[in-house]
Amino acid sequence: AVRDTDSPTLAVIPGDGIGPEVTAEALKVLEVASPVKFSPTRYDLGAERYLATGEVLPDSVLAEIRQHDAILLGAVGGKPNDPNLPPGILERGLLLRLRFELDHYVNLRPSRLFPGSVSPLADHVLSKGDIDFVVVREGTEGPYTGNGGALRVGTPAEVATEVSVNTAYGVERVIRDAFARAEKRPRKKLTLVHKTNVLVNAGSLWWRLFESVAAEHPDVTTDYIHIDAAMIFMATDPARFDVIVTDNLFGDIITDLAAAITGGIGLAASGNVNPDRTAPSMFEPVHGSAPDIAGQQKADPTAAILSGALLLDHLGHAEAAAAIEAAVLADLTERDPGTSRRTSEVGDAIAARL
Amino acid sequence: AVRDTDSPTLAVIPGDGIGPEVTAEALKVLEVASPVKFSPTRYDLGAERYLATGEVLPDSVLAEIRQHDAILLGAVGGKPNDPNLPPGILERGLLLRLRFELDHYVNLRPSRLFPGSVSPLADHVLSKGDIDFVVVREGTEGPYTGNGGALRVGTPAEVATEVSVNTAYGVERVIRDAFARAEKRPRKKLTLVHKTNVLVNAGSLWWRLFESVAAEHPDVTTDYIHIDAAMIFMATDPARFDVIVTDNLFGDIITDLAAAITGGIGLAASGNVNPDRTAPSMFEPVHGSAPDIAGQQKADPTAAILSGALLLDHLGHAEAAAAIEAAVLADLTERDPGTSRRTSEVGDAIAARL
Ligand SMILES: CC(C)[C@H](C(=O)O)[C@@H](O)C(=O)O
Ligand SMILES: CC(C)[C@H](C(=O)O)[C@@H](O)C(=O)O
Repeated sequence: AVRDTDSPTLAVIPGDGIGPEVTAEALKVLEVASPVKFSPTRYDLGAERYLATGEVLPDSVLAEIRQHDAILLGAVGGKPNDPNLPPGILERGLLLRLRFELDHYVNLRPSRLFPGSVSPLADHVLSKGDIDFVVVREGTEGPYTGNGGALRVGTPAEVATEVSVNTAYGVERVIRDAFARAEKRPRKKLTLVHKTNVLVNAGSLWWRLFESVAAEHPDVTTDYIHIDAAMIFMATDPARFDVIVTDNLFGDIITDLAAAITGGIGLAASGNVNPDRTAPSMFEPVHGSAPDIAGQQKADPTAAILSGALLLDHLGHAEAAAAIEAAVLADLTERDPGTSRRTSEVGDAIAARL
Repeated sequence: AVRDTDSPTLAVIPGDGIGPEVTAEALKVLEVASPVKFSPTRYDLGAERYLATGEVLPDSVLAEIRQHDAILLGAVGGKPNDPNLPPGILERGLLLRLRFELDHYVNLRPSRLFPGSVSPLADHVLSKGDIDFVVVREGTEGPYTGNGGALRVGTPAEVATEVSVNTAYGVERVIRDAFARAEKRPRKKLTLVHKTNVLVNAGSLWWRLFESVAAEHPDVTTDYIHIDAAMIFMATDPARFDVIVTDNLFGDIITDLAAAITGGIGLAASGNVNPDRTAPSMFEPVHGSAPDIAGQQKADPTAAILSGALLLDHLGHAEAAAAIEAAVLADLTERDPGTSRRTSEVGDAIAARL
């Protein structure tokens, strides 16, 4: 479905809260950096549309979005605890539906401590080495499938279940992708993170497939750590990581911690990638819609801009992607932590470096 | 089943690796600190017994252990990747079986940054306030139930599931316990951690019961954060937490990170508590058996010693428990980070302060 083209079509979902502001800056930078001219179509989806119309993601809109070469998403989500917006409606109905329907099985989240950004970790940890790893989070299975249910809801006898579904089909393909990525990096190291000692069924499947694909990649150094131990390493020795492959939920948890230790969620980019290109991939900052600061030009658009770089890279424009990263790096290095810039000023500054 | 007695019986499971060494120090300190005389019975369970006999936890041994007033456990677990010891055998068969059979529904994990211990967090994070919180981790439900299974194992069509089971019965009792604990602390603050926006069935159950029990405790300040956002707060503002209540798996993940940021897993104690006292509670350090340093008197027994304090507190000897904590605090403060002491020397030093 994805065309190799000089004018790729882009479905843009600015979303809610700070989503539209950061997306505008990502588009601004994309326009300057990209060797190809994008033709963007805007889709208004998110809390606002749902609250106004009851619609989350109409099938016809999904069908349209599917025709594009790539998707750029800002952030979706309404005010916390809005009684008209029960938890899960937008997440399951929009964000996860896009990831699942478009088969985004590689949820790619690079983590790098850029010079100039402030880590909450102490110098004795940071001095162990550069933090520069990428998490390959499975995106279409695990506890995110929406399997499970509830019985006798609202009574003292209520039972609620969540089923993590893991298939050889789904696990093997993401592990293969992670090995391919590890192979392209200087350290060529891949760590599997799971909880094989408790989640024995899923853990055994992940472990066996990891071992068998590893046998085909003798040049990649591998290891395994439990999700709980991974927390400790993230906090005490994050430089040990190169590529991490993990399950959907563990990946969600690890990547927020990874974002925190590398200077915050304002910098963390992600790609929901369909490596087989049977549908468009989707790029979005890891952060949420932050309704408390929406519309005030206070949000840092860097994560959205870096997500744009991942988008370019995915479409085959590696050089342009690297140029955006370099511009961000320069901007971060020269950022004055004492002054706060408007969202558009950050976008302008990064665009001006290109 | 638990007696109020002057000579409580203690089932001691030293376990594997460094387990026996740290348990010896915990018993040494308990003996000095306790106003009552324990009569300990040692149970050899763990990797060694399993490898020698194939036995994990014979029913007759479980029945015997159940007759005690409390259980002290060191650590269980064999060498990593031992082909004779598949992952889960000891965890599911011994550790989790004890927690489930003895209805340890409150897995209690206090986290405090003691003066003198080294946090991996930077000063600008630590200066936000003292880190002193306790995680009340549900211990008998969630993804730990061992529900789920696998189909067509070893084929490309394999499907493996893990089922998180959550009941109103199980969730309400642990939430009630957490509110009672929050009420006794100066800040009286309780945070629910879950992933209600994705795990909507379990999340909705946790959220509704949390809200309804909160209505009975107007003096307790409450809030909710998603597990991924909790990671960010742990790394950037852990002083915000007072009491956390969460699911079995999220609690496993959070408490290892909590241990890391408060000076490491060598200090983290835990209690597997049956608050209804229908069976003995079990106290154990959060760390594992660390086979690589076993038998070398290199392990820090502080976590085991603090677990002994939790045990004393549970049996009604709050003053003696506080005395152990004070002795540990003094020892930590005066520890010379440049010299390493033997396991028994640390135990001796703490015992000598009592
Ligand atoms: C909003 C939520 C559904 C989502 C997730 O859990 O994947 C988010 O936390 C993320 O990491 O992209
Ligand atoms: C060893 C393992 C089964 C256990 C758990 O997952 O609960 C451990 O990590 C813990 O936190 O006590």
